[in-house]
Amino acid sequence: MLVIGERINASNRSVGEAIARRDSEFVANLARAQAVAGANFIDVNAGAGKGSGYSETAAIEWLVEAVQTATDTPLVIDSESPDVIEAGIRKYRGEKLMINSVTAEKSRLEAIGSLAARHQAWLVALAMGEEGIPATAEKRLAACEMIMAHLTQLGMSAEQVFFDPLVLPVSVDSSQGLVTLKTIEQIKSRYPAARTVMGLSNISFGLPERKLINRNFLLMAAYAGLDAAILDPLDARMMSVIKVADMLTTKDTSRGYLRAHRKGAIVG
Amino acid sequence: MLVIGERINASNRSVGEAIARRDSEFVANLARAQAVAGANFIDVNAGAGKGSGYSETAAIEWLVEAVQTATDTPLVIDSESPDVIEAGIRKYRGEKLMINSVTAEKSRLEAIGSLAARHQAWLVALAMGEEGIPATAEKRLAACEMIMAHLTQLGMSAEQVFFDPLVLPVSVDSSQGLVTLKTIEQIKSRYPAARTVMGLSNISFGLPERKLINRNFLLMAAYAGLDAAILDPLDARMMSVIKVADMLTTKDTSRGYLRAHRKGAIVG
Repeated sequence: MLVIGERINASNRSVGEAIARRDSEFVANLARAQAVAGANFIDVNAGAGKGSGYSETAAIEWLVEAVQTATDTPLVIDSESPDVIEAGIRKYRGEKLMINSVTAEKSRLEAIGSLAARHQAWLVALAMGEEGIPATAEKRLAACEMIMAHLTQLGMSAEQVFFDPLVLPVSVDSSQGLVTLKTIEQIKSRYPAARTVMGLSNISFGLPERKLINRNFLLMAAYAGLDAAILDPLDARMMSVIKVADMLTTKDTSRGYLRAHRKGAIVG
Repeated sequence: MLVIGERINASNRSVGEAIARRDSEFVANLARAQAVAGANFIDVNAGAGKGSGYSETAAIEWLVEAVQTATDTPLVIDSESPDVIEAGIRKYRGEKLMINSVTAEKSRLEAIGSLAARHQAWLVALAMGEEGIPATAEKRLAACEMIMAHLTQLGMSAEQVFFDPLVLPVSVDSSQGLVTLKTIEQIKSRYPAARTVMGLSNISFGLPERKLINRNFLLMAAYAGLDAAILDPLDARMMSVIKVADMLTTKDTSRGYLRAHRKGAIVG
């Protein structure tokens, strides 16, 4: 399982404040800690919303500089705005690049898809269109098909795409865990060369012991075919569960698990 | 997920000794504790092997009496010997009965299958034949098909059968987690009316943090279609994981999960 570290996101208040005051040490520490904990990518998101009082474009430029100075781990440039993503890419010196994200909404798909094609980047594609998150796996797959058709016209291949099946809370609709898992299976079956990625925490919204639910959902998703997860790499129990999932799905061997255990990285 | 409590098994030394000295209080406490912890069935196995110095037939008769005096939870009468199972059934006054187990081996299948048919019992059927546990899902399914063909001749239906896909350690062959999970899927697809059951602990043989691995494997199995598990209901973290698995697979709602949480039954 590829791990995308989610911690450097301006919607988290302490991170948003660090970005506002251009606190390089704060974000550098957060970047290094995630890399040491095993993140394969580090997501950077400078969008703190309208009340933040700063320009997201200027902020992402500073943030990409600050993070790549601290670590060589590849970045995921994360914004709703094509202009912000482009500004981040201009500052980025790494070889591997991921962009987060497009949906089936035409205007963003056109602008951000073109950026990804031009920079030969990986692209996170959310399984949704103009009307928000579809309630069924079939409609989410249809959104993926719209996206892939458009990306193909832009010269991109399925290998470059990480489809996000999206997650709605089981506390609102109890079938939503299975809807997400079936969406993963259908994406993998329709586009064997594409990969799947998701954030987990929405599944447990409104319920107690959320981390337990998130970890358990990750295991089912790993079996369903999830390739990457956006999560907090500093959550040692989540990272342990990923090691076990990799072993049980043959992405790793029991030797890899034993090696992680010797390093103290397996929390029971 | 149906939970079959595994604790009353003479191969566990303290239980074997309690059976040898006919310690009713010991086994009654173990039965009640498992029932209170949420076991839907209680497995009783009096087979301590050749060195035990007691008759398994006399022991199962005593054991069934002692356990059903302590709890109304249905029993699973567990032995390799048809005669022992029959002796246990004679003492059993409960309505629901499960027998554990047959394989595709002709002689046991004939004798124990006939017993299950005559008593309209549920029957655990291990996905293996004369040559031990097959390495592939296809061969395990073939063993299930041999068993089902024979049980059909004896007048049994798929509804009465709990197929056990069997589990081999990933430390010996890293593909074995997936082999078991694929076997569950194939059994459920071939016999939609049949159920699946398994013990988990073999998956983690030879590795550290076994309980973590067993719990994580259970979650994948729940998604693959596992209906019942033979395990220790006194393991609170395993029982919590079952509650989460039931919610995520829609066997229960988030209300059921919240109820369990209020009772203190969810350990994060």
